[in-house]
Amino acid sequence: MANVLTSKEEDYSQWYNDLVDEAGLAEHSAVRGCMVIKPYGYSIWEKMQGALDKMFKDTGHSNAYFPLFIPKSFLAKEASHVEGFAKECAVVTHYRLKDSDEGIIVDPDARLEEELIVRPTSETIIWNTYRGWIQSYRDLPVLVNQWANVVRWEMRTRLFLRTAEFLWQEGHTAHATRDEAVKEAEQMLEVYADFAENWMAMPVLKGIKTPNERFAGALETYCIEALMQDGKALQAGTSHFLGQNFAKAFDVKFTDREGKLDHVWATSWGVSTRLMGALIMAHGDDNGLVVPPRLAPLQVVIVPIYKKAEEIGAISEAVEKIMEALKSKGISVKYDDSDKQRPGFKFAEYELKGIPVRIAIGPRDLEKGTVEIARRDTREKMTVSMEETPAKVAALLEEIQQNIYKKAKDFRDANTRPADSYDEFKQLLEEKGGFIMAHWDGTAETEQRIKEETKATIRCIPLNNPKEKGKCILTGKPSEQRVIFAKAY
Amino acid sequence: MANVLTSKEEDYSQWYNDLVDEAGLAEHSAVRGCMVIKPYGYSIWEKMQGALDKMFKDTGHSNAYFPLFIPKSFLAKEASHVEGFAKECAVVTHYRLKDSDEGIIVDPDARLEEELIVRPTSETIIWNTYRGWIQSYRDLPVLVNQWANVVRWEMRTRLFLRTAEFLWQEGHTAHATRDEAVKEAEQMLEVYADFAENWMAMPVLKGIKTPNERFAGALETYCIEALMQDGKALQAGTSHFLGQNFAKAFDVKFTDREGKLDHVWATSWGVSTRLMGALIMAHGDDNGLVVPPRLAPLQVVIVPIYKKAEEIGAISEAVEKIMEALKSKGISVKYDDSDKQRPGFKFAEYELKGIPVRIAIGPRDLEKGTVEIARRDTREKMTVSMEETPAKVAALLEEIQQNIYKKAKDFRDANTRPADSYDEFKQLLEEKGGFIMAHWDGTAETEQRIKEETKATIRCIPLNNPKEKGKCILTGKPSEQRVIFAKAY
Ligand SMILES: [Zn+2]
Ligand SMILES: [Zn+2]
Repeated sequence: MANVLTSKEEDYSQWYNDLVDEAGLAEHSAVRGCMVIKPYGYSIWEKMQGALDKMFKDTGHSNAYFPLFIPKSFLAKEASHVEGFAKECAVVTHYRLKDSDEGIIVDPDARLEEELIVRPTSETIIWNTYRGWIQSYRDLPVLVNQWANVVRWEMRTRLFLRTAEFLWQEGHTAHATRDEAVKEAEQMLEVYADFAENWMAMPVLKGIKTPNERFAGALETYCIEALMQDGKALQAGTSHFLGQNFAKAFDVKFTDREGKLDHVWATSWGVSTRLMGALIMAHGDDNGLVVPPRLAPLQVVIVPIYKKAEEIGAISEAVEKIMEALKSKGISVKYDDSDKQRPGFKFAEYELKGIPVRIAIGPRDLEKGTVEIARRDTREKMTVSMEETPAKVAALLEEIQQNIYKKAKDFRDANTRPADSYDEFKQLLEEKGGFIMAHWDGTAETEQRIKEETKATIRCIPLNNPKEKGKCILTGKPSEQRVIFAKAY
Repeated sequence: MANVLTSKEEDYSQWYNDLVDEAGLAEHSAVRGCMVIKPYGYSIWEKMQGALDKMFKDTGHSNAYFPLFIPKSFLAKEASHVEGFAKECAVVTHYRLKDSDEGIIVDPDARLEEELIVRPTSETIIWNTYRGWIQSYRDLPVLVNQWANVVRWEMRTRLFLRTAEFLWQEGHTAHATRDEAVKEAEQMLEVYADFAENWMAMPVLKGIKTPNERFAGALETYCIEALMQDGKALQAGTSHFLGQNFAKAFDVKFTDREGKLDHVWATSWGVSTRLMGALIMAHGDDNGLVVPPRLAPLQVVIVPIYKKAEEIGAISEAVEKIMEALKSKGISVKYDDSDKQRPGFKFAEYELKGIPVRIAIGPRDLEKGTVEIARRDTREKMTVSMEETPAKVAALLEEIQQNIYKKAKDFRDANTRPADSYDEFKQLLEEKGGFIMAHWDGTAETEQRIKEETKATIRCIPLNNPKEKGKCILTGKPSEQRVIFAKAY
């Protein structure tokens, strides 16, 4: 069977596009920059949402919903915030269409007094709302999350990785003290890292961004950074300590236990459908997607192999027992006995979709009381007795989850290298990619020049970074620690 | 304790607004027509979503996600559709802001070539997408649902009932035959009725809309209609048979088993955050919301009653055992031992929020080994031994679910009346409200005149409506059946 995907080796970017298309994950829509998330892609996103939502609730957060639109004047209230988002806004200016000689046109009489921005992020509208919710320390903390769509106009788009509209969650919390807000931002970074590693099977570096790379309006941006198989980094989640910036911009004050009035402290944190891109690039291979069992909407597929129609009855009977046993273990399983496609086609299709375990059963298996099990990650096949199948599959799902994490971790570790001179740095970037640990003099100018000359950015300064005296690779000025550079998505 | 709500009797509309506010369900935002759904309100919506989503999946549907924006030309492709939505559209015309002497302005150089409409509903963008998904009968049916926000510009808004932006789900299915599409539309009406009655405890009439009241672009609109406590009707869900209208507008054809090319048959169906308004008005009373146990994010709250701090320890110990037993039965329970508020305040607060069961425990209860249980629906209190409490609460939750359904059903039945003359009709409308069963001559003109003269609309022609010869209340012309009139939200 011919491979439907361009190989990663040959053209990584085309491989990604092919995979997203062939596995039925997403497609471009007729609206520039906006994607359609197809049913299979969306079902994986739902699993991600479910896991994250539970983690948010377990850490005390509730969901709420805030308006899609933000008055233009709100966006302008926090100076660095509007700076960061003004250049990529969808702007609503009218509220009616009408008939005309040239067909349906925008009704010039229905112009809004103040233009509305389709939210690129919701700090402003939310902090304007919090002013009504918070008067006293008794009202704090406010621990709210929102699942929503947001729009940041993009001319050059890639499915999941960079789209004008995307889906995300944005947490927005309000606290009585600076210390509590910082702890919240750090806690949510841990939640994201936990999700990335234990659900997505994707190892991540935890760190803080340089001032240059901070969220527009944040005092500190925490992030998790993952390494993709082409050696480029992908920022998989961010958590921001916002200080009192938004409370000041929207005049949100509270009376503390001593009766003193102060502005409230804030955090915000988010992950998006970008994680779908990360999942694809962290584990996918030339045969398609590899979905970690814990996030797989479908964990096991069973395909009957038969030539004569009369063979299917006995196979289906045996399958039924296996299905029941698997379901009772909480494993999701589908029996694909459709006669529209041949087994070879089905095998390729389920590999494309990254279903962790495939079971095949034919007449000879029935005779021997066995099935053939194939694992998606290594594509190994094994013959197992029907009796042992449920236990074997359960163990295998766990093993696959661990194995793809280990594989990604080994890759990441093998592709994290120190560079001690600018030449070495550039050579590594050129020839190997990956994370490069290098000394930096701590200035925005140096960071900017390295970016311009090499396209590499500082991905993060790792948390608990070991101190190590050295010299900046560009300027030779003294440095206290290495930071992580990479080219990035 | 003074009542915080205006009484229903005194001013129903104000009662509703007070309840939405005081129970922490939603509030108006700074953006005209857009609401903020507050954490408690959103948690009920999440329960609704969870139940509906499972019902959709159990009937074979998958979720997907389509763009927020619709090109203006798409909306114009189906004539009656654009007619229905053009007058209430949010229109995006620009994609950038910029700095100027007057502050941040819309950048006139960043005008879109074609304006984008914020989706009021997604038939057009979805059917444009389906063209790429459907070639053959093998690709059918397509059974897709989307959870999304939509915008229909509204000047006069009421929280949950009528807002410019609201949350909803919209199912969009594609079928090979007319018959299959009709069956799908009918099936989804049954799903909605099942949800309304068995989850929301809200009895509904199932029927079809008159041509006048159909969805813009539908050949048939099925609906469920509920009766609110003020005698006004509320449309709680609709399911549309769209014929081949959208397939023709977007050129979606398929090859059938015989190789013949035909346009695809369509349905769409939706319910929205409007259901929150229905829930409030179906069961709420002068003390606040009454949440059906099956939709209650919190089913049981336990409040300790004590005077001296040293009493709390023993109470909490007893509570812990009860909590564990309740949780093991799958009942959600919270122990509110906060010392910020007194018990009376907590009682009122949980009544406002409609928590189905409240348990109070004080030192005297401890001595006697009992607790006091209060049910929200009837506000009855009973003393129950601690041992029996878990079983009693489980039974009570079931009983409350049944009881509020019965109460709403009795009210609906008592307020469904025949009218045999126009005078009787107008008198009933004026003095009693409710559903009025009356003969109608079947013309749009009569329907329109009755609406203008009385504000009553035909809510539906019930499914399986008994045939009964009679005379139209307005024109005296012959009629074959009674239809259901009411004033409506
Ligand atoms: Zn201030
Ligand atoms: Zn056509």
